[in-house]
Amino acid sequence: MSFFSFELDPALAADPVFDLHKHGKMEIALTVPLASRDHLSLAYTPGVARVCEAIAADAELYPDYTWTANTVAVVTDGSAVLGLGNIGAKAAMPVMEGKAILFKQFGGVDSIPICLDTQDVDGIIAAVKAMAPSFGGINLEDISAPRCFEIERRLDAELDIPVFHDDQHGTAVVTLAALRNAATLLGRRFGDLRVVISGAGAAGVAITQMLIAAGIDGANVIICDSRGIVHAERGDLTPIKAELAATTNLSGRTGGIGEALIGADVLIGVSGGQIEESAVAGMAPGGIIFAMANPTPEVAPAIAHKYAAIVATGRSDFPNQINNVLAFPGIFRGALDVRATTITERMKVAAADAIAAVVSDDLSADAIVPSPLDPRVAPAVSAAVAAAAQADGVARRTAPAAPEQRTAPVR
Amino acid sequence: MSFFSFELDPALAADPVFDLHKHGKMEIALTVPLASRDHLSLAYTPGVARVCEAIAADAELYPDYTWTANTVAVVTDGSAVLGLGNIGAKAAMPVMEGKAILFKQFGGVDSIPICLDTQDVDGIIAAVKAMAPSFGGINLEDISAPRCFEIERRLDAELDIPVFHDDQHGTAVVTLAALRNAATLLGRRFGDLRVVISGAGAAGVAITQMLIAAGIDGANVIICDSRGIVHAERGDLTPIKAELAATTNLSGRTGGIGEALIGADVLIGVSGGQIEESAVAGMAPGGIIFAMANPTPEVAPAIAHKYAAIVATGRSDFPNQINNVLAFPGIFRGALDVRATTITERMKVAAADAIAAVVSDDLSADAIVPSPLDPRVAPAVSAAVAAAAQADGVARRTAPAAPEQRTAPVR
Repeated sequence: MSFFSFELDPALAADPVFDLHKHGKMEIALTVPLASRDHLSLAYTPGVARVCEAIAADAELYPDYTWTANTVAVVTDGSAVLGLGNIGAKAAMPVMEGKAILFKQFGGVDSIPICLDTQDVDGIIAAVKAMAPSFGGINLEDISAPRCFEIERRLDAELDIPVFHDDQHGTAVVTLAALRNAATLLGRRFGDLRVVISGAGAAGVAITQMLIAAGIDGANVIICDSRGIVHAERGDLTPIKAELAATTNLSGRTGGIGEALIGADVLIGVSGGQIEESAVAGMAPGGIIFAMANPTPEVAPAIAHKYAAIVATGRSDFPNQINNVLAFPGIFRGALDVRATTITERMKVAAADAIAAVVSDDLSADAIVPSPLDPRVAPAVSAAVAAAAQADGVARRTAPAAPEQRTAPVR
Repeated sequence: MSFFSFELDPALAADPVFDLHKHGKMEIALTVPLASRDHLSLAYTPGVARVCEAIAADAELYPDYTWTANTVAVVTDGSAVLGLGNIGAKAAMPVMEGKAILFKQFGGVDSIPICLDTQDVDGIIAAVKAMAPSFGGINLEDISAPRCFEIERRLDAELDIPVFHDDQHGTAVVTLAALRNAATLLGRRFGDLRVVISGAGAAGVAITQMLIAAGIDGANVIICDSRGIVHAERGDLTPIKAELAATTNLSGRTGGIGEALIGADVLIGVSGGQIEESAVAGMAPGGIIFAMANPTPEVAPAIAHKYAAIVATGRSDFPNQINNVLAFPGIFRGALDVRATTITERMKVAAADAIAAVVSDDLSADAIVPSPLDPRVAPAVSAAVAAAAQADGVARRTAPAAPEQRTAPVR
């Protein structure tokens, strides 16, 4: 590094990723004019005082007269960023900014990246609760397991706005969508699928819970962590794994991923670890492999295709990318549209079904999920999520007929 | 209120202030494209991981490759909002959004309104410290005295980014600018002015400190709070007032505002309370009155003009509006440009001198400060603040020759 940080390292300057990230990826834009004294006295003092007084008298006016009803905080502590691990708050920011611009581009959701200078569970909860009035929702991101479970549970219980840990539920929603379409394509009854989930972190836990909520028989689900099959006799389980052990793997299988995969119809990899071909070879023929680790899938697609009829990854350069961007913009769009107080299981399943339905007329082994850029996805997800929120009684209003934000920035 | 909050109360719908505030006053905009798979893989995974890794390896890259170096949090607890008092976090949001759009419009500073759900000093400090990595600076706003003094002092000491309580220092900077020009216009030596400050809250304290730092003789300054003149014999002083009592009013005057004003050259009102004409009548002839309470000045301008040669208020519908927007956008622009670690007294005085200098060639009794819309102000303030930061050794780099942010939002 040179002394002045704005003199670029030539190696970085030549990388298009660094060129694109120079000075960040987002900015604030005004949606009202500020060019005259009249504008100033409407948008700021003295006029603004009337809006403050109205909200002080009736808090229900708050979402109508501030930007908060369309605004989500993307909150991390930098403890589990992508596949990079615990790189800390600052190094996590480019991912959070990326998330924020995806929210805006695909869901019309204004979103603020917040990287926290604490990895303490109580500290994170206190900080998010303190800032919560500023937002219409909280998207937790890249917080390591098992801390993420408690943080989400407590925040969701204590706040009256949606709290959603995308690494858990976004991944689970898109996985469910992909698995539904894969089962349909293969003519398999969804509820009968024997599923192995490799990885018991945030994504693995949420996928397990969601697949069971969507109809998979828990008895036929086997979860593996780095020490092998999760089963009730193990003495080293965290509380959440012990919970899962009580409802999955009811035949009490033990051993490693090789033992787990014998006879399995579905392998879902969310571990980052590699899985030997010999283990994959034990699966029932004609099945399904989702090897979602990035950048290196748990099973190389070429190997996976030898044993499975349908293969998906987390990568954009292979077919069937299991990408959370299919889920989170539409989920929050729908939740914000009806001012939901939380995001229920039914809202997540509705999101998955909506994603699956977008490509249901054009299903093929290479197209079980839509492209992340498919413009039909977010509106479909949003509408389904809003309807599910109404059905679950967590909506504070019906969805508006048209987007509510002014969209002409004034400079 | 109707059941559905989006059905407007007709009285609100007819008010242009409420119409303008519908759905808030700002949004997020992208500064990079997100329309293709290539864009996605540069701005988000997998490309973004390279930026994360680079920052993890060298934290000095952080401001260069995120939006944070241009981003300021506007933080309040809603305890002292405008003249409305302790109306709470949510009711404060329209002011914070207003501040945020002023930051962008006049300083090119991206700014995020954060309204905190705590009024506890330690709670506020903990929350701001936790979120601090997400920002290049912290603008504290509308936090009541004396809590605001401790909150600012501790945050400034513990964070390596500028922390600035605008109700204190923004007001003091513009007041100093106005008083310098008023003194020049009247041919008075600045250091000889006998000054009475009515109000010992955030603004009154900061104005006192700043005028003394700029050359006014503390012996000739008298501060009044709601109980009258602040003097060393009073037993009811807060720590900050006791500090001021030790360095001001060295003749030991006692009594109320009437006694304070006898023979005074300058009255600065930042109290909100009314001052009787009989008290104002005791001032030395041909002096200066800044009656800055909003919406009702401490002395009506028509009365003030009977006793003073120069009159200023906080209102936009009278000449000489003492408006913080002359200061804070340029102060933060300059501080961010050099990545200052704090905002020093010299930076504030430099800002005041720059504001004063903008109109120094066209001084008149009705134009001692520039218009809030004068486009010369923010660049002049920014340059002066940046230079002062360099001189004080709190700058981490020299100012860039051109704005660093992309400014073409992509939709």
